[in-house]
Amino acid sequence: MKQIVYHQFGDPARVLEVLEKDAVTLKAGQARVEVLRAPINPSDVIQVAGQYGVMPDLPAVAGNEGLGRVTEVNGDGIAVGQLVLLPAGAGTWVSEVVADIHTLAAMPEGDLDQLAMLTVNPATAHLLLTDFVDLKEGDWVIQSAANSAVGNYVVQLAKAKGIKTACVVRRDSAVAEMEEVGADAVLVDGPDLAKRVRQAAGAKMKLALDAVAGETFGHLAETLEQGGTLVNYGAMSMQPISMPALNLIFNDIRVRGFWLVHWFSNASKEERMQVYGSLTQAVANGTLHAPIDRHFSLDEIAEAVTYTMAGERKGKVLLAPNGM
Amino acid sequence: MKQIVYHQFGDPARVLEVLEKDAVTLKAGQARVEVLRAPINPSDVIQVAGQYGVMPDLPAVAGNEGLGRVTEVNGDGIAVGQLVLLPAGAGTWVSEVVADIHTLAAMPEGDLDQLAMLTVNPATAHLLLTDFVDLKEGDWVIQSAANSAVGNYVVQLAKAKGIKTACVVRRDSAVAEMEEVGADAVLVDGPDLAKRVRQAAGAKMKLALDAVAGETFGHLAETLEQGGTLVNYGAMSMQPISMPALNLIFNDIRVRGFWLVHWFSNASKEERMQVYGSLTQAVANGTLHAPIDRHFSLDEIAEAVTYTMAGERKGKVLLAPNGM
Repeated sequence: MKQIVYHQFGDPARVLEVLEKDAVTLKAGQARVEVLRAPINPSDVIQVAGQYGVMPDLPAVAGNEGLGRVTEVNGDGIAVGQLVLLPAGAGTWVSEVVADIHTLAAMPEGDLDQLAMLTVNPATAHLLLTDFVDLKEGDWVIQSAANSAVGNYVVQLAKAKGIKTACVVRRDSAVAEMEEVGADAVLVDGPDLAKRVRQAAGAKMKLALDAVAGETFGHLAETLEQGGTLVNYGAMSMQPISMPALNLIFNDIRVRGFWLVHWFSNASKEERMQVYGSLTQAVANGTLHAPIDRHFSLDEIAEAVTYTMAGERKGKVLLAPNGM
Repeated sequence: MKQIVYHQFGDPARVLEVLEKDAVTLKAGQARVEVLRAPINPSDVIQVAGQYGVMPDLPAVAGNEGLGRVTEVNGDGIAVGQLVLLPAGAGTWVSEVVADIHTLAAMPEGDLDQLAMLTVNPATAHLLLTDFVDLKEGDWVIQSAANSAVGNYVVQLAKAKGIKTACVVRRDSAVAEMEEVGADAVLVDGPDLAKRVRQAAGAKMKLALDAVAGETFGHLAETLEQGGTLVNYGAMSMQPISMPALNLIFNDIRVRGFWLVHWFSNASKEERMQVYGSLTQAVANGTLHAPIDRHFSLDEIAEAVTYTMAGERKGKVLLAPNGM
C-alpha cells in the first residue's frame, strides 16, 4: 500500500513523500478499505505547511477526508463491497486504510467524486448558512470565492430555502458558471462592490461569507445591513482581514470565524447525524454538487498540491489512489 | 450669546466659526442654561469633519455634551441655580442653551469637569464592560488607548467588580499614570504584545477593548482566549482594523463594534436611568474620574480642536464657555 507522509512542516511540494508499506493483518472489529477518492482541500495543504490550527504529531499521513470500498472485514456491522466514507482527519491520501468498523460511514452508491467531498465542504456550507444568522425566505447572503466548492454548495443550499445569493468572484470568466449554478447576482470583486451589489440586489445583505480575507473582507462588510454578520472561513489571499473601523462601529457589524473542527468538537452525535443525514441524501441524489477540475494519482502528489494552490482551477482537485 | 457653528463639513480648525446671537425669550416649559463646561471628544471633531455615523443638517451647532446652570425658568420642574446636564447631541459648544425643562437632568454639586463628561465616556466604559461578555471576578480585560478618558473609567469600573485590566499604551511615559489609576498590568503596544501580556497576567484575555484600530487591533486579538470577544469603539490610528484571518477562525474570536448612539436608540428609559443613576453617583462622589488636560474659551475653538486631535494630551480637553 502507498501513503503520502510528511516528516516536517514546510513547502508541501517538497515535504510530502510517497511511502510504500506492507499491508497489515486485520484485528477483530476492523475493516480494510480501498481508497477510491480523496479530495485535496486547501486546508489540507495549509496543514502540511504548518500554518493550520491543528498540528499533527510527525511523521503524519496527509489528507482529511475520502471515500473507499470495503475489501476485507474482521467482524460485524459492514459488508465487503460497501462504499464508505473514511473517518474525518484520518490521513486519507493513501491507497488503503485499515479502520475500526464503527468509524466507517456507509454511503449509498453514487458519484464517487461528489460523495468523497461530503465530510468537509457541504457541511461547512450548511453550517455557514445556519449557525450565525436566522435567515428567512427572501433574505440576501453575499459570499466571496463563490466559485469554490463551498461557494457552489452555499448557492444550492440557499436556493432550496428561498434565500438569495450575491456571488463575488475575482475574474470575469467565472461569472457565467455562477449564474448557471443559480446565483441571484454575480459580481467581480472591487472597491465599489457595495454600490454594485445594492444596484443588483436592491437590498442590503444580512450575512456575508468570506474565504478570501484582505480587502475583499472589507468590501463584503460594506454590503451588510445594520447589525449584519460577516463570517470568515478562509484566507485565500494570504492577507490579514481588513475593514474600516467606522463600518464596524456605525453599522454594528458582527464578525465571526468559522472552523469545522470546532463544530465537530462541540456538536452532539444527534446534531452531527442531523447535518450529515440530509447532506448525504442531497449529495447522493445529485441535488448538491461541486465542480471537479481534475484527478491525480498518489505518485503525482507534488504536482497535485502545486496545482491545487495555483488558484486558476475550475473545480476541486482529487486524488484517485487506485486509479479511475 | 455665542455659538460654535459650521456651515460645511471639513477641517474643523477651518470650518468652525464663533457666531454672536441675540438671546431668545423663553416659551412656556423652557429654561435658560448658562453653559459652564463642554468636553471636546474626538467623536465631536470627527463629526465636524463629516466622517461620523450621524451627519447633522447644516448649518449645525457643534458639541454633544455639556454641563450648565439654570439662570431663568418659564415653567415648573427645575429651579434657577440648579446644575444640569444638557441633552445629548444638543449642540453644546455654546455660552447659553434654551431647552425644554424635561430634557435637562439635574446634577448634584461637584467637580464641574467630571460632571460635564458624564453623558458619553463613563457610559461607554460601563457598557463596554457589561454589554458583550459576562465578566466574573478575576477575569481579565485588555484595552488599547488605556490612558484615554474611557480607558481610565474602564480601569476604575473593572476594579470595583474585581475584574483585572491589562492596559496598553503607545508610549513609555504613560505607563506610570496607568499603574497609579489601578491597572493590573501596563504594556506598551508592539508586535509581541500577546507574549508579554501572557507573561504579565499569567492568563488569556476574555474581552479586548480597542479604540486605536490598525495593527493594534490585531495585537489585542492575539491576547484573547478561545471564543474571546474584541470590541472596537474608535480608530485613533485612522487605519482600518486588521488581524490575521487564521486567528479569527482557529481561536473563534468574536469581533463587535460599539457606538453609544446605537445604545441610546435601543435602550429603554429604565435601562438608561439604571446606567446613568449609578454613574452619576460615582462621578459626583469622585470614585469615577478621568484626567483633565486643559480648558479653552469658545473664541479659541480652532486651537482647541487642533490641540485635542494632536494626540499628545494628558487628559480631556474642555470648553469653558463662560470662563473658569
